Amino acid sequence: MTSLDLIEAAALRLAGRVRRTPLLNAPLLDEIAGRRVFVKAECLQWTGSFKYRGGWSAVSALPEEARARGVIAYSSGNHAQGVALAARQHGAPCVILMPADAPSVKIANTKAYGAEVVLYDRLTEDRDAIGDRLAAARGLTLIKPYDDAQVIAGQGTVGLEIAEQAAEAGIAAAEVVTCCGGGGLTSGIALALEAKAPHLRVRPTEPEGFDDVARSLASGQRERNARAAGSLCDAILTPSPGELTFPVLKRLCGPGLVVSDEEALRAMVLAFTHLRIVVEPGGAVALAACLFRKDLPERVICTASGGNVDAGIFADAVQRFGS
Amino acid sequence: MTSLDLIEAAALRLAGRVRRTPLLNAPLLDEIAGRRVFVKAECLQWTGSFKYRGGWSAVSALPEEARARGVIAYSSGNHAQGVALAARQHGAPCVILMPADAPSVKIANTKAYGAEVVLYDRLTEDRDAIGDRLAAARGLTLIKPYDDAQVIAGQGTVGLEIAEQAAEAGIAAAEVVTCCGGGGLTSGIALALEAKAPHLRVRPTEPEGFDDVARSLASGQRERNARAAGSLCDAILTPSPGELTFPVLKRLCGPGLVVSDEEALRAMVLAFTHLRIVVEPGGAVALAACLFRKDLPERVICTASGGNVDAGIFADAVQRFGS
Repeated sequence: MTSLDLIEAAALRLAGRVRRTPLLNAPLLDEIAGRRVFVKAECLQWTGSFKYRGGWSAVSALPEEARARGVIAYSSGNHAQGVALAARQHGAPCVILMPADAPSVKIANTKAYGAEVVLYDRLTEDRDAIGDRLAAARGLTLIKPYDDAQVIAGQGTVGLEIAEQAAEAGIAAAEVVTCCGGGGLTSGIALALEAKAPHLRVRPTEPEGFDDVARSLASGQRERNARAAGSLCDAILTPSPGELTFPVLKRLCGPGLVVSDEEALRAMVLAFTHLRIVVEPGGAVALAACLFRKDLPERVICTASGGNVDAGIFADAVQRFGS
Repeated sequence: MTSLDLIEAAALRLAGRVRRTPLLNAPLLDEIAGRRVFVKAECLQWTGSFKYRGGWSAVSALPEEARARGVIAYSSGNHAQGVALAARQHGAPCVILMPADAPSVKIANTKAYGAEVVLYDRLTEDRDAIGDRLAAARGLTLIKPYDDAQVIAGQGTVGLEIAEQAAEAGIAAAEVVTCCGGGGLTSGIALALEAKAPHLRVRPTEPEGFDDVARSLASGQRERNARAAGSLCDAILTPSPGELTFPVLKRLCGPGLVVSDEEALRAMVLAFTHLRIVVEPGGAVALAACLFRKDLPERVICTASGGNVDAGIFADAVQRFGS
C-alpha cells in the first residue's frame, strides 16, 4: 500500500464529511504580492482548520473496539478540535491534552465539542509522557498530531483538492506554500501532489525562531528549535520535524521559508481585508511568505490552514495594520 | 422570456467568472441559534459581495457599442466594486457615484479596480439626478443597484446555487433569510427558488429604522424610511423597495425581519469566531435574525452578503463581543 493509496482511502472515508474548501484569490491581493496568489482556505473547514481531516481520518480508521474505548490527542488546539469533533461524530470518548497557554477560544471550543480537556505546562511538562500514561490507564488510542500515517493521509486530502482546483483554475506551474509545524499537512500535500500534480513543488513556511523544518531541510537531518514557546503562531510551534514526516519533506519539498510574527499578522489582516477570511497567525505564515518573500515564482498556492484566533489578538492586529 | 430565463442566461454568462460560494455551517453556531443555520458566504465572492454577480450580468448583457462608451453606477460601495471590476474585466470605462460617508475601504477598493469615483452627500444630494446627468453627458449606461432586470438576474444566480446546495446538504424544508436593501438580491433569490426549490420561502431582513421592505410587505404598498442614514448597516440603507423588485417580494416573500445594529454586530463577531468569515454589518443582518429571532423554522439558510467592513468597526466589535 502506497502513501497515495492511504490518502485516497482517507478521501473516500472523508467524502461528504469534510468540506471541500475554496481556493480563493483577489486582484488587489495579487497587486500587493506582485504575483498571483491562490489561497486554499482551510480556515473554512469544520472546526476551523485542516486538522479535522486528519482527526476524522484517524478516528474512522480505528477498529470498532478501539474506537469504543476512546481516543486521546495532544494539541495546542486545532488538532484537539478536529479530533474532538470527529470522535463525537463517531460516538467515541475523547480526552484532549492541551497546553495551559493555548488560546482560550481553542480550549473552549474543544470542550464544546464534548471532549474531556486536560491542561499541561508547555515549558515544564512532557506532553508525550502525560499522553502515554493517560492512554495506557484508560485504554485510549493516542492520535498523534502529525506522526501518524492516517493523520498524514487525512491532511493529504488537502493536496488532492489543490491538484484538482489548480487544474480547474488553469494553474500550470506554481509552488505550493504551506504552514508547517510537525509536517503532517506539508507531507500529506507533498505526497498527494507527487502523484497528482508533480509540477507543483511544496515549500514549507515557519515562524522566525521555530524554523526547525527549514534548518532540517538545509542540513539533511532533523534539527530542533531552541525554544518551545514565544511566537504568536501557536498552531505550528513544534520542537522538530516528525519521524514519519521528515523523510517525505526531505524527498519532496523545496527550501523552507521563514517569516516574522509581524509579517504573519500583516498577512492575517490582508486576508481579512481582501479575502474576507479569518486566519490565525500560524495559519497565515504561508500567505505571509507569498506576500513578502522574493524567492517564489509568479504563481503560488498557499494554505490558510487555520482560523482559530483569540479575539484580542485579531482585533489588535486589525487596528494596527488595517486600512 | 421569464425571470427564470433571465437568471439562467445570466448564470451562463457568469460561469467560470463568479465564484460558487460555499454554504457554511458550524455545530457551535447552531447551538447558539437553537436551530440549524447554513450561511451562503457571498462575502467570499470576488470584490467581497454578491454585487459582483449583478455587475457582471449587467455589463456582459450590454450591446458592445454601449459597453465601449462605458457604464456608471451609484452605490455605498459593494455595487460600486462589483460593477467596477466587471467593467474593467470587460475593458469598459466606469464612473462610480458614491456617498462621501461610505466606508473608506469601499472607496479605496473601487478606485483600485480602476473606476473613476465621484463622491456625493447622502443627506443633501439626489444620487439619481447626479447619475442621470453624468450618464447623459458622457453617453454612459447607468447600471442601477437593484431596479435593473439584468442585475436582478445576476443576483438570482445566488438563488440557483442555494437550491443546488440545499439539495446537496439534504435540506428539505427551510426558510431563506436574506439581507435586504432595495431588494435586488432578495427578489433574484426568490425568483430562482420559486422555480427550483419552491419549498424554500424567502424572508428579507433589515436594520431597525430602515425596515421599508418589512413595512411594505405588511401594508402591501411601497413604504419609505424616515431617515437616509444612521445605521452601521450602510450596505442596505435604501429609501424604499424598488419598482421592479417590490412586486416580486410581495408575491414570493414571507414577513420581513428586523434586527438592531447591535444584533448585526454580534452576528458579525459570531461569524468571525465560528465560521471564520468576515461579514460587514449590513451583510450580517440575516445571520442576526437566524441567531436571535424566534419566528423562524428549525432550519434556515441565510445570506452573508458582503464582507467589506472598515477595520476600526470590525476590531471594535470583536473587542466588545468576542470571547
